[in-house]
Amino acid sequence: MSDFSFVGKPTPVIDGPAKVTGNLKYTADLKLARMLHARFVLSTYAHANITGVDASAALAAPGVERVLTCDDLPDVTPSSRARLMLARDRVIFVGQPVAIVLADNAAAAADGAELVEVEYEPLDAVTSMDEAVAEGANIVWPTGIPTGAGDEAAHGADTGGEADDDEEEEISNIAGQTKMETGDINSAFAQADVIVERTFDTPMVHQSSIETQGWVAQPNPLNGGLTMWGSVQSPFGVRQDVADVLGVPESDVTVNGMPVGGAFGAKFGLYEGLVGLVATTVGRPVSLILTRGEELLTTNPAPALRIHGKLGFKGDGTLIAMQSDVTADTGIYPSGLGSFAAMQFASFYRSPNLLLESTNVVTNKQSVGAYRAPTSPTAFMAVETLFDEAAAALDMDPVELRLKNAARTGDPAPDGEDFSVIGMVETLEAAREHPLWKNREESRSKGRGVGIAIGGWMGGLEPGASVCKLNRDGVLQVQIGTADLSGTPTSFAQLAAEAYGVDVDKVRFVYSDTDSAPYGGGVGGSKTLYTLGNAVIRAAEDARRQTLAIAAEEFEVSAEDLEIVDGRVQVRGFPDRSVALGDLAGKAMTFGGKYDPIHGTGSQSVTDRAPSFCAQIAEVAVDEETGEVDLLNLAVVQEVGRAINPLTVEGQMQGGAVQGVGWALYEEMRYDEEGQLLSGSWMDYAMPDAVQASPIQTQIVEVPSVSGPFGARGVGEPPVIPTVAAIANAVAHATGVRMTQTPMTAPRVLEALKGR
Amino acid sequence: MSDFSFVGKPTPVIDGPAKVTGNLKYTADLKLARMLHARFVLSTYAHANITGVDASAALAAPGVERVLTCDDLPDVTPSSRARLMLARDRVIFVGQPVAIVLADNAAAAADGAELVEVEYEPLDAVTSMDEAVAEGANIVWPTGIPTGAGDEAAHGADTGGEADDDEEEEISNIAGQTKMETGDINSAFAQADVIVERTFDTPMVHQSSIETQGWVAQPNPLNGGLTMWGSVQSPFGVRQDVADVLGVPESDVTVNGMPVGGAFGAKFGLYEGLVGLVATTVGRPVSLILTRGEELLTTNPAPALRIHGKLGFKGDGTLIAMQSDVTADTGIYPSGLGSFAAMQFASFYRSPNLLLESTNVVTNKQSVGAYRAPTSPTAFMAVETLFDEAAAALDMDPVELRLKNAARTGDPAPDGEDFSVIGMVETLEAAREHPLWKNREESRSKGRGVGIAIGGWMGGLEPGASVCKLNRDGVLQVQIGTADLSGTPTSFAQLAAEAYGVDVDKVRFVYSDTDSAPYGGGVGGSKTLYTLGNAVIRAAEDARRQTLAIAAEEFEVSAEDLEIVDGRVQVRGFPDRSVALGDLAGKAMTFGGKYDPIHGTGSQSVTDRAPSFCAQIAEVAVDEETGEVDLLNLAVVQEVGRAINPLTVEGQMQGGAVQGVGWALYEEMRYDEEGQLLSGSWMDYAMPDAVQASPIQTQIVEVPSVSGPFGARGVGEPPVIPTVAAIANAVAHATGVRMTQTPMTAPRVLEALKGR
Repeated sequence: MSDFSFVGKPTPVIDGPAKVTGNLKYTADLKLARMLHARFVLSTYAHANITGVDASAALAAPGVERVLTCDDLPDVTPSSRARLMLARDRVIFVGQPVAIVLADNAAAAADGAELVEVEYEPLDAVTSMDEAVAEGANIVWPTGIPTGAGDEAAHGADTGGEADDDEEEEISNIAGQTKMETGDINSAFAQADVIVERTFDTPMVHQSSIETQGWVAQPNPLNGGLTMWGSVQSPFGVRQDVADVLGVPESDVTVNGMPVGGAFGAKFGLYEGLVGLVATTVGRPVSLILTRGEELLTTNPAPALRIHGKLGFKGDGTLIAMQSDVTADTGIYPSGLGSFAAMQFASFYRSPNLLLESTNVVTNKQSVGAYRAPTSPTAFMAVETLFDEAAAALDMDPVELRLKNAARTGDPAPDGEDFSVIGMVETLEAAREHPLWKNREESRSKGRGVGIAIGGWMGGLEPGASVCKLNRDGVLQVQIGTADLSGTPTSFAQLAAEAYGVDVDKVRFVYSDTDSAPYGGGVGGSKTLYTLGNAVIRAAEDARRQTLAIAAEEFEVSAEDLEIVDGRVQVRGFPDRSVALGDLAGKAMTFGGKYDPIHGTGSQSVTDRAPSFCAQIAEVAVDEETGEVDLLNLAVVQEVGRAINPLTVEGQMQGGAVQGVGWALYEEMRYDEEGQLLSGSWMDYAMPDAVQASPIQTQIVEVPSVSGPFGARGVGEPPVIPTVAAIANAVAHATGVRMTQTPMTAPRVLEALKGR
Repeated sequence: MSDFSFVGKPTPVIDGPAKVTGNLKYTADLKLARMLHARFVLSTYAHANITGVDASAALAAPGVERVLTCDDLPDVTPSSRARLMLARDRVIFVGQPVAIVLADNAAAAADGAELVEVEYEPLDAVTSMDEAVAEGANIVWPTGIPTGAGDEAAHGADTGGEADDDEEEEISNIAGQTKMETGDINSAFAQADVIVERTFDTPMVHQSSIETQGWVAQPNPLNGGLTMWGSVQSPFGVRQDVADVLGVPESDVTVNGMPVGGAFGAKFGLYEGLVGLVATTVGRPVSLILTRGEELLTTNPAPALRIHGKLGFKGDGTLIAMQSDVTADTGIYPSGLGSFAAMQFASFYRSPNLLLESTNVVTNKQSVGAYRAPTSPTAFMAVETLFDEAAAALDMDPVELRLKNAARTGDPAPDGEDFSVIGMVETLEAAREHPLWKNREESRSKGRGVGIAIGGWMGGLEPGASVCKLNRDGVLQVQIGTADLSGTPTSFAQLAAEAYGVDVDKVRFVYSDTDSAPYGGGVGGSKTLYTLGNAVIRAAEDARRQTLAIAAEEFEVSAEDLEIVDGRVQVRGFPDRSVALGDLAGKAMTFGGKYDPIHGTGSQSVTDRAPSFCAQIAEVAVDEETGEVDLLNLAVVQEVGRAINPLTVEGQMQGGAVQGVGWALYEEMRYDEEGQLLSGSWMDYAMPDAVQASPIQTQIVEVPSVSGPFGARGVGEPPVIPTVAAIANAVAHATGVRMTQTPMTAPRVLEALKGR
């Protein structure tokens, strides 16, 4: 560690001052000349025919300029969430946009939307996965389920398994089924000494960023394209989606990735195409910023999942069979998330025999999307609960049982490759030594319980490039083409500083639109720093090489005889022979200059995944009278490869764990039988507050990855994965009761306690 | 030529549709949230003490928010035009900004400016170069003339000569004097058989773009920097100037080079720093768009020049001595333009003996700047008139006399190097064959006159870089960091198309701000295409190489076996084995992709100048009654190296010649004895209209340069250079009278005719 000047040093995020002083401008702050403010009119039914839309009152209201329905827009068929259009003839979920009101200010648009009268003829709706697969179920998509791609790929959730079944089947609400088999699962279970199995249920859970989704589109009347600003995770992905919807080449669309006030997988594309189509249709800039209610009602939370898990062990604790069968309620559009959940269940333990099955069903509810480590809180609730139960049955220490079966470097990985260097064992070993774990029996003696769980994440990959320029003031400007969700620019600045040889405060991070930025993929899959970090390092090294080449010619020495010290290039051993970096840059940035401008470029397309692991230890007290679970302590032990910036790494660990606490104890998108969302505001949708989520202790473990920048791995997703399981295991430790449904609310726990 | 697919093909400018439909947004179209509109209160005196500023009436006017004087701004000393601040205590030229009114709309700002009462105590002013150097003259800068750099360097006008004299001298209005001597001028003249000499005078002439100067600045309260939008020739130069004024690192300033509606050298920096300081002072975005009157009153026209030229020839026509002595009236700020004029006089004819002297004086008039081929219309009026006279004295054909003494490849050039491949001879030979020239005696027989002249331009150099990306739609996006004054993006698109192997309509040109763009210098000196063209070609070649490398891996063949045909990469000889370019790009722009994104980079720092030449032949009729000169025909014969886009090359030739006609016959910034501008509107400042300037014939000559892209040379400046001389020679041919002062208005010609 001491070899590094900047890597590994806790570094406050470079845009912190702009954020805390309110100087950073978000999408909602954007005002363009002649811009119209948009507000949706949303369906109040989960399933109904639209028999009339009366916009006359709205159009008469002050400030309202237009009210559009699907009839006013080109007929683009919404084949996926990213192509969601205004409803045509029929609504198919509560919160579906039926009309859009355009006004010269936001308040007028909201008032106008209230005044649009939509007449419905209600129809029966399918609102749960049980209903969806029941005999004689209503059919959500009578003309066939659309086949548009979901966004799970962007989150790294495509790490194996068979493709969704595209065969022609009889019409149903089943969007796809997958099955993956290794070895002989039946004979393995027949040979098992201990078998554990249970069914687990998690509801739809909402990402609920502080900043709602929002977009501004400015049409280009010359080519039918546009410029878009948005709080989006993938500017280049949005460019492609919008171009597809508009029917123009992607080069005629420019996307400005704006500062993102939270995303967590929800901002991979939703209404961009619709906003773009509205703007090009009316020929004026259009701004649509979702309200909190709309954010909850009409975006893309995590799917509801049911997972039946089953493990078979030999008497010595050797795992020999893993089976999972997942049903996913993916709302109105199909998604492959169920198969990913089935895969995640079995990805990180050694087992020669596997059977992983999944069924994805559609229902008359809003569509689903990625949410931080998609499906993994559920998959690991299952596998880690079952490991705990198996340990008891085998009379083994739960950590030792996990260690015995944990995946190790070189084992076969779920993506078909062998695992690169991984640190699952080191993570478990570190957790084993944590005081919270070591003192678990003392805790139980006080009537509390301590549970442990681990989560793993394969990590995503995507090519990307970076540019690194040196300015006359000695500042290094670093460009990449991705958004910032988690403070990675600060880490990139550290990498650039380290690779080039200047202080971090001499590095400026440049945000550009998709025309000007080097390519970078969507931010997700915990891949941003892991992959693009190498591009930044290479760009900085390229810039350094160019800098030293100029200095070498100026000093008439070899570049090898030069070093960069305190913002100056100097001849080794001759501190008097030195020149400021900025002056070297200036020699190229001037009339008659004889050197090429210092313009470093770096690219990467790493294909070696760097899986990462997070173990958590939860201590709880359970009120036997009420069933209330009180989280007393939560330890987050995470293997991060190399903590480029320990501050932001710890921030990710804490933030992920807090969201895990929400999954475990509080959060649920609850729908009634008619498909009405009951938790449609932050008054009703319960997220943990600061007291409920704390205290969280973090511990970083470092097992350097082979291909990451200075050994770093992605850190964003792992910490949300094991929290549910750790808390459930703690509840079991305290009470002997196994919780199989989230959130583990007081009534549910009380119910379970009663059945004890 | 037929070897090229796109180079050399007449190609309509790619942004033409946006321009003619009004869809291209200029600086004045920009509206930012909370933006204030600024209007200057300008000095009405050339020299006066300010005894009071009363803004109360202005501040009471509706919409006016602030009225600032120098007391409200940080005390930045204006050391050059680029740092012009509000007047402090004293005004020193008519049109100097004294106060600035900020209002919430432009009309309110204009009304407010009318209401600001400034009280003056008039002082004696120096308003002409004669006055400035007269015994006992008033001193324009009693505390010493500022030494800030002028902008002539940016125009390529620094091609040699001694530096301005910086010695401590007694206080005067002389800002600098230069002297350059080669051989022995006195003995040369003593040996000459024919000596010709005269003194020539040209007034201040204004660039008068259709779009006036204008800027918008948005302050960044976090670092004291800002973002600026402006109609500027040098975004990176403006960045540096503004950062200097604000006292921040240049990396804290971002400049957006907006579409430029004409510049011609005038837009290299003027009020950017002041606008920036006003914006950071008030903490809101500020827009200042000059009116036409302000544009004429308070910007930076070409200097007034007086040049005494003298040539000595042997009887056989061999030039043996060239002498020039230039006095330049550079207005209120110093400039080195006088020495450049002295140099230009002698740059392109072989002469072993030279004496080139210059004196730059300051006066109480607005400052001067670059104007297309700075000082050259005057310098070549002198040398080309004298060549004409010498030819008569030697009884030689004027073209033959020039050919005999013209500079050739390998001759010593004024920059101290030897001339690279040049085409002065070829240009003269082409002109000699032009019907307008061949029929000159027939023309005279009709009472008309035909004159010929040639002009030369060394051409500027500046390093620069370019980026070239391939998108999923098969479009190549090309980025450079310079402004567009003359349609170069279309030529760059042709170069990229040629180098990469796609159609021009598959190339998109990307305009970025100084944070996102690769470095490019100011547009001037006829260097943009000549220098940056190579960077674009290299970036496109780099992108092509990357593209073929991906295809080679996909097809498992060597890259040498691949070709790009009709937007697809195919295996040579196997048209069935092909893939669309966009699909190759997409293989890198996707989750899990295994190729680096296609991101080509190219840089250049060419040090080999490519001088270029333009000969013009004018046919005139002179009304002996009134003195009016009627331009009947004007032929423009220009050597361009390689006409990448003949359409834009001819556009430059015609545009330059039209401005030359303005210099010759119409344009003059006329001041009265008190320094009041008499030609302060386009009603008074006469520019040639379409009838007065036409008809212009163009003829392209191509002598490929050594280092330019496909042999191209810069073409922007040469065509304005010889027009004055050609018309003056035509007047002499028609009347026998030698005009030595411009514009050659009817009264002046009549006066000369009377003295015949």
